[in-house]
Amino acid sequence: MSNYAVAVIGLGSMGMGAAVSCVNAGLTTYGIDLNPVALEKLKAAGAKEVATNGASFAQDLDAVVVLVVNAAQANAALFSETGIAKKLKPGTAVMVSSTMAAADAQAISQKLTDLGLLMLDAPVSGGAAKAMKGEMTVMASGSKEAFDKLQPVLDATASKVYNIGEAIGLGATVKIVHQLLAGVHIAAGAEAMALASKAGIPLDVMYDVVTNAAGNSWMFENRMKHVVEGDYTPLSMVDIFVKDLGLVNDTAKSLHFPLHLASTAYSMFTEASNAGFGKEDDSAVIKIFSGVELPKKGDH
Amino acid sequence: MSNYAVAVIGLGSMGMGAAVSCVNAGLTTYGIDLNPVALEKLKAAGAKEVATNGASFAQDLDAVVVLVVNAAQANAALFSETGIAKKLKPGTAVMVSSTMAAADAQAISQKLTDLGLLMLDAPVSGGAAKAMKGEMTVMASGSKEAFDKLQPVLDATASKVYNIGEAIGLGATVKIVHQLLAGVHIAAGAEAMALASKAGIPLDVMYDVVTNAAGNSWMFENRMKHVVEGDYTPLSMVDIFVKDLGLVNDTAKSLHFPLHLASTAYSMFTEASNAGFGKEDDSAVIKIFSGVELPKKGDH
Repeated sequence: MSNYAVAVIGLGSMGMGAAVSCVNAGLTTYGIDLNPVALEKLKAAGAKEVATNGASFAQDLDAVVVLVVNAAQANAALFSETGIAKKLKPGTAVMVSSTMAAADAQAISQKLTDLGLLMLDAPVSGGAAKAMKGEMTVMASGSKEAFDKLQPVLDATASKVYNIGEAIGLGATVKIVHQLLAGVHIAAGAEAMALASKAGIPLDVMYDVVTNAAGNSWMFENRMKHVVEGDYTPLSMVDIFVKDLGLVNDTAKSLHFPLHLASTAYSMFTEASNAGFGKEDDSAVIKIFSGVELPKKGDH
Repeated sequence: MSNYAVAVIGLGSMGMGAAVSCVNAGLTTYGIDLNPVALEKLKAAGAKEVATNGASFAQDLDAVVVLVVNAAQANAALFSETGIAKKLKPGTAVMVSSTMAAADAQAISQKLTDLGLLMLDAPVSGGAAKAMKGEMTVMASGSKEAFDKLQPVLDATASKVYNIGEAIGLGATVKIVHQLLAGVHIAAGAEAMALASKAGIPLDVMYDVVTNAAGNSWMFENRMKHVVEGDYTPLSMVDIFVKDLGLVNDTAKSLHFPLHLASTAYSMFTEASNAGFGKEDDSAVIKIFSGVELPKKGDH
């Protein structure tokens, strides 16, 4: 193990992958989570120490990676009574990788700066499999100092690092603009497939035409397959897009910017959640359309 | 030349390609257009006869392909005083390939049926280059008799033929559902890029992130490149999507179906047209967002 020490907070699918990638790269790695099963798993993978908070090793760290699910959890992990921020050495770098509004990233940055800490605003994407291989995509903004200090962590966890600029909030916003497109594309796919069904078009034929033509999107091809197969087993849930498109709208509001399509897509996912489909696959947003016959699992 | 005789009405980019492909496949090919330059070009490519109407050869035809720009022109080409329909032999097959509402396709079918003619509701896609190589994609509905009678034309002009079903209107609707996605994806790309610019994100970086991630669409990748380059030279114009998303909404109205996103995208393109951008590239829909700085040609 190198002398470079990093703690990953939040050992869900992305956080576990990032932590294991740090271990694999030879960094002295610590893990923090409330779930004892996740802690055991990371310990077995080679972490130096795991715990429900970082009190016992905070002083040894060069860097912290925050990969909890949202801004509220990030604030708790950093600034609550058992939060790690106050215990870190001055100059420690904190990579904040949860999806959150730019304003939340800026507020966290202010508090970290007040404690003499560095911050990288660094949302990630790529999914669990890529995280486990150290091949995340990182969209980051922050000072050169923060980038430099986190270089060993970026090398260990990411195959592609976008440097968006210096200002905290840019990284968060790039992720949010990306989620705008992802969410609108799923909702548009659902609207198109529901219209096709209402018009009596076999959905497998419609899917085949679109995925071979200019109307295709990454999300259409991936998610509308679930509709054709009638399988709404959640890979990513409707409620995730209620959250993410909510962040998109918060960000636009803070910029005094109108979002014609993303505000509509947000309403569609919110309606789907209220109708009882929040925990189903996000393609279940198609169920907001009444009077439409959809394929059932096993039909196909 | 074979004994099979076909006339193509409408020698624009798709129609010219289809007609030349019929010549190349050895069919006895006729061409009808109001533009003498297009007629000369097809004659030089090997057509048996070209004219501004089909009076002189209508009785010799096995098939007619209609590739004018919309339903109004298709109706004029078929049913006006100089229209070809009344002059055709009973049993002649008419392939109606203009993008139009299902209701328009059904009305045309009724009139053709009354004259003892067959109809295939058969919109096409693929662009001019593929049309010229006989590699169009055809999304068709109609009777087995109509498909069979048009088989030599389909063989000559298409690399992929989707048989959507028997009912006239299904082919038109598949094309329209496809255009729903294409139009919404352009408008969503514009909304996302405008938000990114407002937030201070370099648009070439945003483009790079999205096109390497799950937020990508065929249209985002193709059209937002024009925004990054500040080049709104019309390849396909804003006004085309005012027309096509108008058809999407007409179709939905006839099916009593709500379109949350496509109705919004229609408003965005209509606003862009009213603001003076109707003849620019369809990516110019991004110009409806005030207070946003966009790349200019030559910046990049």
